[in-house]
Amino acid sequence: MKDLVAFCKSKGFIFLSSDIYGGLNGFFDYGPLGTELKRNIKNAWWKSMVHDREDIIGLDSSIILHPRVWEASGHVSGFTDPMVDCKVTKARYRADKVFFSPINVQGKLLGYICVTDEEDPQVSAQKKVQALLKANHCKDTPDAFELKPLTQAKPEEFALIPSPATDHAGDLTPTRQFNLMFKTNVGAVESEASTAFLRPETAQGIFINFKNVLDTTRIKVPFGIAQIGKAFRNEITPRNFTFRSREFEQMEIEYFFPAEEALWPELHKQWIETRYQWHQSIGVKPEWLSFDVHQKEDLAHYAKACTDIMFQYPFGVQELEGIAVRGNFDLTQHQTFSGKPIGYFDEERKTKYLPYVIEPSVGVDRTLLAVLVSAYDEDEVNGDKRIVLHFKPQLAPIKIAVFPLVKNNPELVEQARTLFKKLHTRWYTLYEEAGSIGKRYRRMDEIGTPWCITVDFDSLEQHTYTLRDRDTTRQTRLSESELIQFFEQHLEA
Amino acid sequence: MKDLVAFCKSKGFIFLSSDIYGGLNGFFDYGPLGTELKRNIKNAWWKSMVHDREDIIGLDSSIILHPRVWEASGHVSGFTDPMVDCKVTKARYRADKVFFSPINVQGKLLGYICVTDEEDPQVSAQKKVQALLKANHCKDTPDAFELKPLTQAKPEEFALIPSPATDHAGDLTPTRQFNLMFKTNVGAVESEASTAFLRPETAQGIFINFKNVLDTTRIKVPFGIAQIGKAFRNEITPRNFTFRSREFEQMEIEYFFPAEEALWPELHKQWIETRYQWHQSIGVKPEWLSFDVHQKEDLAHYAKACTDIMFQYPFGVQELEGIAVRGNFDLTQHQTFSGKPIGYFDEERKTKYLPYVIEPSVGVDRTLLAVLVSAYDEDEVNGDKRIVLHFKPQLAPIKIAVFPLVKNNPELVEQARTLFKKLHTRWYTLYEEAGSIGKRYRRMDEIGTPWCITVDFDSLEQHTYTLRDRDTTRQTRLSESELIQFFEQHLEA
Repeated sequence: MKDLVAFCKSKGFIFLSSDIYGGLNGFFDYGPLGTELKRNIKNAWWKSMVHDREDIIGLDSSIILHPRVWEASGHVSGFTDPMVDCKVTKARYRADKVFFSPINVQGKLLGYICVTDEEDPQVSAQKKVQALLKANHCKDTPDAFELKPLTQAKPEEFALIPSPATDHAGDLTPTRQFNLMFKTNVGAVESEASTAFLRPETAQGIFINFKNVLDTTRIKVPFGIAQIGKAFRNEITPRNFTFRSREFEQMEIEYFFPAEEALWPELHKQWIETRYQWHQSIGVKPEWLSFDVHQKEDLAHYAKACTDIMFQYPFGVQELEGIAVRGNFDLTQHQTFSGKPIGYFDEERKTKYLPYVIEPSVGVDRTLLAVLVSAYDEDEVNGDKRIVLHFKPQLAPIKIAVFPLVKNNPELVEQARTLFKKLHTRWYTLYEEAGSIGKRYRRMDEIGTPWCITVDFDSLEQHTYTLRDRDTTRQTRLSESELIQFFEQHLEA
Repeated sequence: MKDLVAFCKSKGFIFLSSDIYGGLNGFFDYGPLGTELKRNIKNAWWKSMVHDREDIIGLDSSIILHPRVWEASGHVSGFTDPMVDCKVTKARYRADKVFFSPINVQGKLLGYICVTDEEDPQVSAQKKVQALLKANHCKDTPDAFELKPLTQAKPEEFALIPSPATDHAGDLTPTRQFNLMFKTNVGAVESEASTAFLRPETAQGIFINFKNVLDTTRIKVPFGIAQIGKAFRNEITPRNFTFRSREFEQMEIEYFFPAEEALWPELHKQWIETRYQWHQSIGVKPEWLSFDVHQKEDLAHYAKACTDIMFQYPFGVQELEGIAVRGNFDLTQHQTFSGKPIGYFDEERKTKYLPYVIEPSVGVDRTLLAVLVSAYDEDEVNGDKRIVLHFKPQLAPIKIAVFPLVKNNPELVEQARTLFKKLHTRWYTLYEEAGSIGKRYRRMDEIGTPWCITVDFDSLEQHTYTLRDRDTTRQTRLSESELIQFFEQHLEA
């Protein structure tokens, strides 16, 4: 993981935000290559989910919405994480990510242990038990114990549970609920009336515009509304690079369909398959993808089902995309809170209803990380180790690089420049003349450029060029028109 | 203007944000067509400014940056507007947009008048003078007077100046400075240490990454860094639809060049021309464009020159884009505040320096409004009035519409569907079968779709189709391959 972060920085994919000021925890800036990769991911999603389909249209709502939106959606009261503080070190923890247990010896309480999930909790726990025994000069074997999250601690136990930072009992504050929405004030007065929130998800911007979309388009249920945009969550402990950050970008679809129980299982299955295929289409390794089907008891009260598409990140198997069947909870809430009827009149069924919805929701940053990890490879070429990013051509930040064989031959340079100019207004192309051809190939491999074209002395006479493939390193000799045909086929089909 | 707002809403271009909750002043949501138009504008800018050039690369920095960034840039202390309140009505004004004058009769003070710029201030002033004379039973002619902005009022005058809302002297608060940055808190503690700001411009995200970009690319001065992204300003009085909103999107370039006084005038001229041409290339009417060259005395102390590209909006001639020569003020500030050397070593000049910068900065929302206003037209076709949007094809939300002549003929429908399927994965295409062909043409005209294709009974035998042009309403008969060739030529060249 550390290697990945260093690689991303060194190649200009991702920097810690405000790096020059020591960084800002949970925020990231995308460098030149990361910005192109991110754009390509968003464009691939938009093309596949909006333009290539007839039943989904786009929307772009604001980040700051009316505060009532978040009351209706339940975010003001319920979008919280349980939090505890260490009174001594001021370290802050999510209470569901901290684990504790009483430690008994022959049925008699010796003390409590408390560990975080930053390392393997079982391993940490064993160490803390040994320390506890030693401190108590106890040489007996402790009874078996089971770690529980701190959210399950009884109030009276807090005096006995040590802080994981100090190992001193009573150093933790009681658990309290912390709302993850960033707050701000709109207008010049800082009061409760002017409080507004940065959206923690793009989805609600879709629900509140459901009626507007119905009124201004000719679309009919079943249909979806798609949106790409920034969202913000004031995470207590941001972690795992861009995976859990405080500012991130989402690609969300709300897919509305008739409010009939019989319909959702098949539609849900279809959506899971559609999204699973999409991730593979942009180069996410299928062998690192899996599914997490949520159990009934873990679902929100309004949800009918939820399946997550999981990815094996370097830091573990984590959610890449969630595909939830949400019923019509959100539309119902907004209809109630706004007092405005927003029902859909179904001409086929001759009835008015609030449609059910399936929500495929994926993070741009998480997708980018999965694409990057999937593309990364180290192999050997002619006995030399090389780093190569096997991006799909459509995703590659730079598509083509054009090199003159040497930079001090004006004829070579001129022909290379001419070819470059023909290509670069159609496909994002780089011209480079510094360093040996081998070094230039390596540099392009490291940033995932699929093809390099070298203009050499034969080019001057025969007007053919060496096309070198990133993945196979194979070289082919092609004329200019053959090159253009090749790129049309591989980049536009 | 009201018509434009209503048109934007009715066609699904732009909605007031959180419409269903009565809206949120200064925030807007883009509907399905507005979202496509906005994407097309951003993509046209990125292609023209980044991909088609060799000297500009992209960046995507976070919205919430380290608070020190805004101290260094001067925004914490200086990004303010002067503000006054009416104590009675609670109305809030920008003090530089409110005008006052003492009114004398034969050299003797009768009282003060105060007007806003919501109507023509001179006209309002005359009315208020008449009211003042009447209230004082004065039938003489008042002396000549001159309106001045409230920012020029002396402290002792505030007791005498009436509020423009109540016309009662002393109802206005004194002027105070209001910082336009939205504030929030990062992390779970609300304290000064955790205060952060939503960026009021994307530019600073570029400056703080200047060194990162140098270190991770092979680019050499002169070069530019481009960024598209949201910015936020807590405007005291947002107005003019999306023109002055509180949440908006910017497209900014910082173009770095050697810190030599002789270089900037020519470069500045080039950039003004480049950006002026770009606006025309996306369909902004040249006859509504003009320039505002800032006078030396109006420039910030570090700025060397600034020229705004102005557009004649329905609400007046206003700034569309600013092109400023900023010297190296920002880089110098960030070097000082961070304590980290970020100079550029110029190999040609054998010297290290902080480059000067030219900043072409344009709002996406302002550009969209200019494109929409430029495209909007009402004309007559066969004696009927029609509304038509003359978008450039590259900007049009939907490129092509395919219609079967009638919807109840399965053969026609099938052939139309087949043709539609061939086109729509390459270009954003709509299939429609409801209503008469004439009505379908009109609907497409109103949303700016450049071409409609009708599949009629001749199509079944001859496999040719009617291509109808939005602007000329001329119809041509083309085969499928001719159609595809036509669109390749007009949409991809």
